[in-house]
Amino acid sequence: MYIGKVVGNVVSTKKEAALTGYKLMIVELIQRNTQEKLEEIVAIDLVGAGRGEFVLVVRGSSARMATKKHDAPIDAAIIGIIDTFDE
Amino acid sequence: MYIGKVVGNVVSTKKEAALTGYKLMIVELIQRNTQEKLEEIVAIDLVGAGRGEFVLVVRGSSARMATKKHDAPIDAAIIGIIDTFDE
Amino acid sequence: MYIGKVVGNVVSTKKEAALTGYKLMIVELIQRNTQEKLEEIVAIDLVGAGRGEFVLVVRGSSARMATKKHDAPIDAAIIGIIDTFDE
Amino acid sequence: MYIGKVVGNVVSTKKEAALTGYKLMIVELIQRNTQEKLEEIVAIDLVGAGRGEFVLVVRGSSARMATKKHDAPIDAAIIGIIDTFDE
Amino acid sequence: MYIGKVVGNVVSTKKEAALTGYKLMIVELIQRNTQEKLEEIVAIDLVGAGRGEFVLVVRGSSARMATKKHDAPIDAAIIGIIDTFDE
Repeated sequence: MYIGKVVGNVVSTKKEAALTGYKLMIVELIQRNTQEKLEEIVAIDLVGAGRGEFVLVVRGSSARMATKKHDAPIDAAIIGIIDTFDE
Repeated sequence: MYIGKVVGNVVSTKKEAALTGYKLMIVELIQRNTQEKLEEIVAIDLVGAGRGEFVLVVRGSSARMATKKHDAPIDAAIIGIIDTFDE
Repeated sequence: MYIGKVVGNVVSTKKEAALTGYKLMIVELIQRNTQEKLEEIVAIDLVGAGRGEFVLVVRGSSARMATKKHDAPIDAAIIGIIDTFDE
Repeated sequence: MYIGKVVGNVVSTKKEAALTGYKLMIVELIQRNTQEKLEEIVAIDLVGAGRGEFVLVVRGSSARMATKKHDAPIDAAIIGIIDTFDE
Repeated sequence: MYIGKVVGNVVSTKKEAALTGYKLMIVELIQRNTQEKLEEIVAIDLVGAGRGEFVLVVRGSSARMATKKHDAPIDAAIIGIIDTFDE
């Protein structure tokens, strides 16, 4: 999985029906060891994450599994809010 | 998912039959936070996106799921037109 | 999918049986917008592409789907020859 | 698979139920040939790896398979502790 | 698929049972066009490749398919030894 920070969301009226009902969050994937900003992606939110929160993101077909609808056109999902990093 | 901008399309007469009927759009994946141009890919268009529009792109096996034909040889699909970015 | 250019092929006598019968083409994935050479990969050819031709490549599990043998050990396939780019 | 080094773990109380019971380890994927630090990811630990240990990480849908729950929202898992590198 | 060069192997006693019996080879993925060293990964060997040999590597879920055990926690496999490159 990936460590990310929620930085906003996108609004899309004209979209695939299977996306309806999901908040589409803009998440910045981050590298804590180098403080580098990696990719910026869009993930559905399954745990009610807010802007500025550090989150756990799953990608690829495993993101579909998180939605319990295995044929959803989804390749990224927020599946946890990170409380602490123990390093 | 990914944020992209439609920049054109490709025409391919000699292709796999399963691609017939789909517009093959050239999409520039973009990083809003760094204004960097990432990869340029080709995605089928499922929502009637036009050139210059910002779109939501799903990749990998989840793109196949968007076509409802789970064995389509497709790894990228436009599944939404972005109205606004709330950041 | 990806835009690529066929630059050659590899010959492999000692290989998985499921690859037998397929031409193994070396394809340079390219970024038209930056003229950058991306990854160089090996893809099976499903449409009779020749050296120097611009092709459409599908990757990951969707490449398996293109072969109609869903358990083939294949992660990249040429599925179209590009006639024109409309940008 | 990937060579990684365990550098810590994350704690997430508010998360998908399917993650409950797994330790969420922060793993630095490393390139031994260039001593470069690649991506930093979060992987579930299936073999009891400790901080500072070199581990074998599987990613994507294959990571789900490692959990024996094929619909787990997991895309990275530690599946081995590396004793030695023979190069 | 990818072009790689076998540079060694890893030994892991404490690992997932499904990996038992496979040699875990360290493979350097290479870009012939730019002579660049790409990622260094670990792949199971299905064709008896030796150190220094150029090999064909399949990745992702397709690597699982190569093992005929579709739920193996494997995301990279050596599926061919390259005799020649015709470029």
